[in-house]
Amino acid sequence: MNPKQLVGEKATEYIKENMIVGLGTGSTAYFAIMKIGEMVKNGFRITGVPTSKATEDLALSLNIPLLNIADVKKIDVTIDGADEYDTHKNLIKGGGGALLREKIIASITEFYVIIADKDKGCDILGDFAVPVEVTPFAKEITINQLKALGCEPKFRQKDAELFITDNQNYIADCKFKEIKNPKELTAMINSIPGVVENGLFVGMADVIISDDGEGGIIEID
Amino acid sequence: MNPKQLVGEKATEYIKENMIVGLGTGSTAYFAIMKIGEMVKNGFRITGVPTSKATEDLALSLNIPLLNIADVKKIDVTIDGADEYDTHKNLIKGGGGALLREKIIASITEFYVIIADKDKGCDILGDFAVPVEVTPFAKEITINQLKALGCEPKFRQKDAELFITDNQNYIADCKFKEIKNPKELTAMINSIPGVVENGLFVGMADVIISDDGEGGIIEID
Repeated sequence: MNPKQLVGEKATEYIKENMIVGLGTGSTAYFAIMKIGEMVKNGFRITGVPTSKATEDLALSLNIPLLNIADVKKIDVTIDGADEYDTHKNLIKGGGGALLREKIIASITEFYVIIADKDKGCDILGDFAVPVEVTPFAKEITINQLKALGCEPKFRQKDAELFITDNQNYIADCKFKEIKNPKELTAMINSIPGVVENGLFVGMADVIISDDGEGGIIEID
Repeated sequence: MNPKQLVGEKATEYIKENMIVGLGTGSTAYFAIMKIGEMVKNGFRITGVPTSKATEDLALSLNIPLLNIADVKKIDVTIDGADEYDTHKNLIKGGGGALLREKIIASITEFYVIIADKDKGCDILGDFAVPVEVTPFAKEITINQLKALGCEPKFRQKDAELFITDNQNYIADCKFKEIKNPKELTAMINSIPGVVENGLFVGMADVIISDDGEGGIIEID
């Protein structure tokens, strides 16, 4: 079994009957959702809340009952991937561009399960650029203020145009060298006017399920 | 002379020739801009950066040369109003709904002059609701999390519909009782996913020009 499938399926053990479950997005979450689809097919009752359109489509194809985020006050368990994680369970997410939606879902989740193969792990975050969602108005000013925090920001492109989020904003991918204090950095980024949200998830993950590179599972909790 | 005109005109004394000047919005800023128009007519050279479409129109009608915010890295002096101010120069702004634009302009301003008649002054902020700009996606969740900070949030309406900002977001007017620590509160509000910006301006104003209710001017600096 490949590591993504291994950790994705393992994560479903945190789901109990009748729970509301946040369904993540990406190549690792895919395997968790496939497994949940199998469980539902076997009569297990859960309700899903998708973190993206792609996940919604996949879940519908597997007959997983879904709720709209607007109708949910609390999610019992969310299973989602990460672009980078450290040993203190801090994360960088948003490589897919849906960081605001993912953070809102994480913020109402009781138990937040992150699944990521061992290549995503690190001692200090910073290999992956922090995605920052920025309003179009005066984006040059906002990016200058991000730069002043010590990073190299770069507007994300798609097909030679600026990438536009679901909320009609841009993404600045901010490459820091070493993020020694992610909690402080996330507050500093969010205090810049024009910043909608950033991809540092600090103090949100309850457990990270990863692999040891030899077919075994490692849990950081 | 009415207090608004008194403080509005007084503020223009901070402007020196060839400066880039942020032009505020509202009934008090109106008098500052009128005075600047008079100065420009008399040959005084400045360049303005408007904080709103209404101000842009007014400035153009007075032949004040203007720059677009996107072309500016630094503003020498900005003169703008406030909905409430305390003796530590903390402000609540955004009653007009343009708080993001106003905060971006304030953030690149070297010397930020606030003009407000004495009725706007207080010892502790909180009489005026703090406007919070909120993304439409999952706005119910965002407003619940604002509520958890101890306020009564209410989506702003216009003509029986939800008010929509220039950035296509909503405004939640958040009525707190007493805002004892505005610095902490602004960080807490901005850390909520779905919050774009809030109307607490902490540590931004360099001077507040107000009146004493008897035709005299008071400066807090």
